[in-house]
Amino acid sequence: MKFSEELFDEVKEIWDEYLKHPFVKGIGEGTLDKEKFKNYLIQDYLYLKDYAKVFAMGLVKARTMKEMKFYHESIKGVLDDETAVHVNYLKGFGLSTDEVEKYKVELTTASYTNYMLGIALKGDSKDIAMTIMPCTWSYYYIGKHLYETYKDRLEENFYVPWIKEYASEEFRQCTEEWIDYIDEICENISEDEKERLKDIFIKSSLYEMEFWNMANK
Amino acid sequence: MKFSEELFDEVKEIWDEYLKHPFVKGIGEGTLDKEKFKNYLIQDYLYLKDYAKVFAMGLVKARTMKEMKFYHESIKGVLDDETAVHVNYLKGFGLSTDEVEKYKVELTTASYTNYMLGIALKGDSKDIAMTIMPCTWSYYYIGKHLYETYKDRLEENFYVPWIKEYASEEFRQCTEEWIDYIDEICENISEDEKERLKDIFIKSSLYEMEFWNMANK
Amino acid sequence: MKFSEELFDEVKEIWDEYLKHPFVKGIGEGTLDKEKFKNYLIQDYLYLKDYAKVFAMGLVKARTMKEMKFYHESIKGVLDDETAVHVNYLKGFGLSTDEVEKYKVELTTASYTNYMLGIALKGDSKDIAMTIMPCTWSYYYIGKHLYETYKDRLEENFYVPWIKEYASEEFRQCTEEWIDYIDEICENISEDEKERLKDIFIKSSLYEMEFWNMANK
Amino acid sequence: MKFSEELFDEVKEIWDEYLKHPFVKGIGEGTLDKEKFKNYLIQDYLYLKDYAKVFAMGLVKARTMKEMKFYHESIKGVLDDETAVHVNYLKGFGLSTDEVEKYKVELTTASYTNYMLGIALKGDSKDIAMTIMPCTWSYYYIGKHLYETYKDRLEENFYVPWIKEYASEEFRQCTEEWIDYIDEICENISEDEKERLKDIFIKSSLYEMEFWNMANK
Repeated sequence: MKFSEELFDEVKEIWDEYLKHPFVKGIGEGTLDKEKFKNYLIQDYLYLKDYAKVFAMGLVKARTMKEMKFYHESIKGVLDDETAVHVNYLKGFGLSTDEVEKYKVELTTASYTNYMLGIALKGDSKDIAMTIMPCTWSYYYIGKHLYETYKDRLEENFYVPWIKEYASEEFRQCTEEWIDYIDEICENISEDEKERLKDIFIKSSLYEMEFWNMANK
Repeated sequence: MKFSEELFDEVKEIWDEYLKHPFVKGIGEGTLDKEKFKNYLIQDYLYLKDYAKVFAMGLVKARTMKEMKFYHESIKGVLDDETAVHVNYLKGFGLSTDEVEKYKVELTTASYTNYMLGIALKGDSKDIAMTIMPCTWSYYYIGKHLYETYKDRLEENFYVPWIKEYASEEFRQCTEEWIDYIDEICENISEDEKERLKDIFIKSSLYEMEFWNMANK
Repeated sequence: MKFSEELFDEVKEIWDEYLKHPFVKGIGEGTLDKEKFKNYLIQDYLYLKDYAKVFAMGLVKARTMKEMKFYHESIKGVLDDETAVHVNYLKGFGLSTDEVEKYKVELTTASYTNYMLGIALKGDSKDIAMTIMPCTWSYYYIGKHLYETYKDRLEENFYVPWIKEYASEEFRQCTEEWIDYIDEICENISEDEKERLKDIFIKSSLYEMEFWNMANK
Repeated sequence: MKFSEELFDEVKEIWDEYLKHPFVKGIGEGTLDKEKFKNYLIQDYLYLKDYAKVFAMGLVKARTMKEMKFYHESIKGVLDDETAVHVNYLKGFGLSTDEVEKYKVELTTASYTNYMLGIALKGDSKDIAMTIMPCTWSYYYIGKHLYETYKDRLEENFYVPWIKEYASEEFRQCTEEWIDYIDEICENISEDEKERLKDIFIKSSLYEMEFWNMANK
């Protein structure tokens, strides 16, 4: 059994809760309150800033040029591609990115991003991969689920650009490259280390849930 | 008005909530459930490990030998003095420190400590002081309050060693040295920077509250 | 007087020595021993790995999305554009990048790159800019000088791709953006801080000289 | 064969050169020029500041409380005990520590300390131990050698306090604890990792030599 499969087994229950989460379902059904979505986007934009910094710490701790380019590519994905969807929606809400950056980071957001940064400071590439992946991977998990569930009635859904971003072929590919990377760097690790790494993966998954809960308040 | 006074004004309301918190009052009155206290001590012991690491990051970012020795002295306070009270109580609960270290860090604990570590990675001495002080300073605030409120009926209180630790002359002195240090390094900072620093101070204070809430669950 | 101009004044003498350096002149005249150039490229390739990490630390310590994207763009410049010239030459020497990465980092290379990383760990964006810029800026200084000096007789020069890389319009633009960035973040700094920052800028310039000396051995 | 023994074999030749170094012999014979010693002490004092920071990074990356206390104890050794000898000599030379801190760090000093800090940023406890130990261990190697060689004629040697510091029982014990720690954390590592770690150990040993050379200029 691949380590990525073991990880998935550990969090499947939590991730399946995301799928049933009223905020996530509201996106799929297109019924989500737009004010909530706006607030979510603001916090998520602030989140992505720190998220890119965690990848940057991964680049710092990487050993090979290949690995470094992989992290660099991921930072691009965060700063350029992912934020593009945000920027567009935010513009629709009358908000420039400069204005968004002036918003206060909420405690839930700060807990999640600094958890990742704290792990990245103390740990190595494996720790960083554990803390960074639940976000990307579970967003693909959600995106794919929403697309498959609602694909016949997306025309009038305000949230289609968001759904398509995370259900896209590019995003799937990025996620799978990360899963392969995890399996590669976690080959032959001890049971003790597995336990330690799983704990990080689970904690990041719990922070994801906290983030959805915050978004829905 | 000193910057430390401005900071105190920002959080006084939150800190006064600590004083009324059932867990804290339970310590003062000696009525706190011992099982709750045991669980609190376990998480607090794990907290102190990361707390010492934040001071170590302060030492890394310090510029003068005097400052470095100040951080080093504080690490000593955390690793030797503060944990001594924990170790004693834990022994009473039949727990060795090796056993305690095997416990899982709870999400609330991880949020608080990694928030501090994330700030310490990104920021400078001022940021580190902001994130590190609400814990020390508010514990002295609590210790002093509990001692003054309950000093006539402490004989049979199981929690006296805890109260005396945080109401002690040594702990008061350490807190005041930190307050002076904050006023020293934050002299002549801009209003923008003040806002930024206050946000960190407030967030750490909110994490303190989360910690008390977790302890009382 | 802009701070970048003050910085330039501090190091002009050192940088002008680069222009007269036998290794650099050998590139311009096309007479440089190819074996020396090969060894230089190997060390420089290893250098660029750490150099990208210093920019990544800059991204970690940046405050605004704009700044973060600026650092990210620079990492791209290092990992994609700059190494492209190296990779091409190295291929000509029969070396794959995988083989190059197996070479030992020489002490001179390690001194320079870890100096930058140590400064990046301890310091802020200003410190990072100081330590990172002598390399980029002085390479443009050299590239421009070589191009202007030898432009009439470049046809048969083996080192033309190298010269054109660092004399290119893109590289000029990147350098100027960095100079503007330095002037922006160093506005209104104290004399004490100026002294501290100049010392970093000078030290990095001295490491550049050590690197040229190593290359010529 | 213990890994510490393998390490020693790798550097024995370099370390034996320290013993024959004119600066080191000058200390043993008491003939060293005092002005040179003064300049050495100044740079070494500045060195120790960063050296303590490398231990602090070790504390940040440590996993157990026991390990953390070990690093903390070592910082104490650097900041309190080792500097005490420096402070005393410097006072004799009419220099306060505040004055010493205003001296510029020389390039050789900066190369060595930032090499350690760069490794500490990127690496784990094993990397940190490798980069940090050649200094402590080789100073004990030198101190012991000088004491044994010159012990019958130390009375009038100006450098006795320096020799006795590094030949002391406390310093021997500290060194041996570190050797044991290295053997403990490097148990069961792969041949690849051994090569990587040896390279760090050798590089730090070469920086030691550079430091003696600088001292003797």
